[in-house]
Amino acid sequence: MRKVNAWAAMNTGGTLEPFQYQLANIAKDDVEIKVHYCGICHSDLSMLDNAWRRTEYPFVPGHEIIGEVVETGSNVGHLKKGDFVGVGWISESCMACDQCVGGDQHLCGTKEETIVRRHGGFADYVRCHWSWAIPLPQDIDLSKAGPLLCGGITVFNPILMANVRPTDRVGVIGIGGLGHMALKFLNKWGCEVTAFSSTPSKTPEILEMGAHHVVNSTDSEAMKSIRGTLDFIINTTNVTLDWSAYLKTLKPKGTLHMVGVVLEPMKIPAGLLMGGEKNLTASPTGSPGQMRTMMEFCVRHNIYPTVEEFPIKKINEAMDHLRDGKARYRVVVKMT
Amino acid sequence: MRKVNAWAAMNTGGTLEPFQYQLANIAKDDVEIKVHYCGICHSDLSMLDNAWRRTEYPFVPGHEIIGEVVETGSNVGHLKKGDFVGVGWISESCMACDQCVGGDQHLCGTKEETIVRRHGGFADYVRCHWSWAIPLPQDIDLSKAGPLLCGGITVFNPILMANVRPTDRVGVIGIGGLGHMALKFLNKWGCEVTAFSSTPSKTPEILEMGAHHVVNSTDSEAMKSIRGTLDFIINTTNVTLDWSAYLKTLKPKGTLHMVGVVLEPMKIPAGLLMGGEKNLTASPTGSPGQMRTMMEFCVRHNIYPTVEEFPIKKINEAMDHLRDGKARYRVVVKMT
Repeated sequence: MRKVNAWAAMNTGGTLEPFQYQLANIAKDDVEIKVHYCGICHSDLSMLDNAWRRTEYPFVPGHEIIGEVVETGSNVGHLKKGDFVGVGWISESCMACDQCVGGDQHLCGTKEETIVRRHGGFADYVRCHWSWAIPLPQDIDLSKAGPLLCGGITVFNPILMANVRPTDRVGVIGIGGLGHMALKFLNKWGCEVTAFSSTPSKTPEILEMGAHHVVNSTDSEAMKSIRGTLDFIINTTNVTLDWSAYLKTLKPKGTLHMVGVVLEPMKIPAGLLMGGEKNLTASPTGSPGQMRTMMEFCVRHNIYPTVEEFPIKKINEAMDHLRDGKARYRVVVKMT
Repeated sequence: MRKVNAWAAMNTGGTLEPFQYQLANIAKDDVEIKVHYCGICHSDLSMLDNAWRRTEYPFVPGHEIIGEVVETGSNVGHLKKGDFVGVGWISESCMACDQCVGGDQHLCGTKEETIVRRHGGFADYVRCHWSWAIPLPQDIDLSKAGPLLCGGITVFNPILMANVRPTDRVGVIGIGGLGHMALKFLNKWGCEVTAFSSTPSKTPEILEMGAHHVVNSTDSEAMKSIRGTLDFIINTTNVTLDWSAYLKTLKPKGTLHMVGVVLEPMKIPAGLLMGGEKNLTASPTGSPGQMRTMMEFCVRHNIYPTVEEFPIKKINEAMDHLRDGKARYRVVVKMT
């Protein structure tokens, strides 16, 4: 039994207010975590606004959780009280389907998402299945690590999937919460990194994050000048772009990878893929195995999101800061 | 110097008639081939009709060539008079660009295509760069091998590209000239093979070619019943289909691969790719290395297209047979 002090919206788009709820005795595969930090992701806003028609109220957002194990179910052997862990978009998967058994637990057909029909991380405590409580490396900076659990793994998994190599030239579309982490990862991966941005004022910051080149994606001449040069492009935006223009910037065998949820169907000329054996791929988040790998890579190379920290009592101000497009580049809430 | 007796159309969509032309002294990297057999491919018809606005007349079709080396340029060491070789869609590539040096000569930006600004294989002799004169294995059936050089490699390359495994469940859309070869390859590859066909009357033949299941692609209930079951689908048709319906038949991590030139942009919902990390890929023909590998695989497993043979004097009848959709399943013209 646990009484949880959380922050919840009572209706669509509502402000977050203190909300208490009760958890039953811990399940045998679960881990209970005292939350220290929690990032804010755009999907917290989408869920708050019921944009995907999946939200139940009271709604407790928060799925970039950093915390400390305080209790473990009877089946949990590898985690103990006091261990630091992170939790992202997913909190539970069946562990028995082909995807789970194959190490792709994030593709489990019956997975549970941290803020969908569950209460999320803007709370003093949260629970998840042990598989999704990602052990954190010793030396990680807890105050900045939260956004790695959702935004970070969302752009890190594609690098693994596409087998990006340090010799590759790569591009990142949209330099916001996800895109700025992609720049940092790909720079340390050893690649030559091009940022596509429609906000020229961000250029100095973008270069500092690890981009070697910034291309103004609204400048068709600039886009033409890099035709046929990139091995891999990751798109972090969720709007319809000129997909053909990006496909043309790819080298033969190059890949355009989508992580932004673009609602309008993409118009893809098959001939543009065919001539150069180009690929269109996409992914949601990542698996626990990939998350562990990412954490180790981040600590080795000192990779963290660029964060702005708010105390939990200013949670609504923090949410508005993100909603207004002011986040540079990711918002983290300190819970304690 | 060589006087070539060929069959050419003098204008758009015209019938083929005897046509002579002169070749200069052989270039140092070229091979001259006496043509024994030549398959007819749909792209011969497309070129004859100037459908791609690239045709020059007199136009000599034919790019599924089986023949015998009769002369070699001074740089050619590995082929000699009397060797049997095949030539497909491509006749020359630069051998120096990144694609050529990397073994992807079919993606060379300055490649020459056998029937584009060159005279093709409906002739007694034809020449190509040595790299595109594919040596044939000892025991190959010359009378049936022609269609492997274009139609065959077009569906074989994707199997290599997608790293299809014998444990996979795969699908083939469109059981015609290309599709029927894909069925034969994938059956011998060890896969469980589903054919998508809108012509139920072909079912017995399709099963005999190696399909384990035939799904009527116009039956939405049948399509629904196989949702989430396939690892790999190759589309050999060139018309707009319900791409979402096919993407839904894929397992997580599955691939929809296009080899048919669909002119209308494909409408692809990013969310359908994303949820299951699905891939949309495409390819034109294949490289010389892949063609050699394919030939060896065909001889090992006795894989040949199902062909109908016409003598060269009935070339126009043969072309019409294909144009009328009557080919079961590939037409080969005997030249001698």
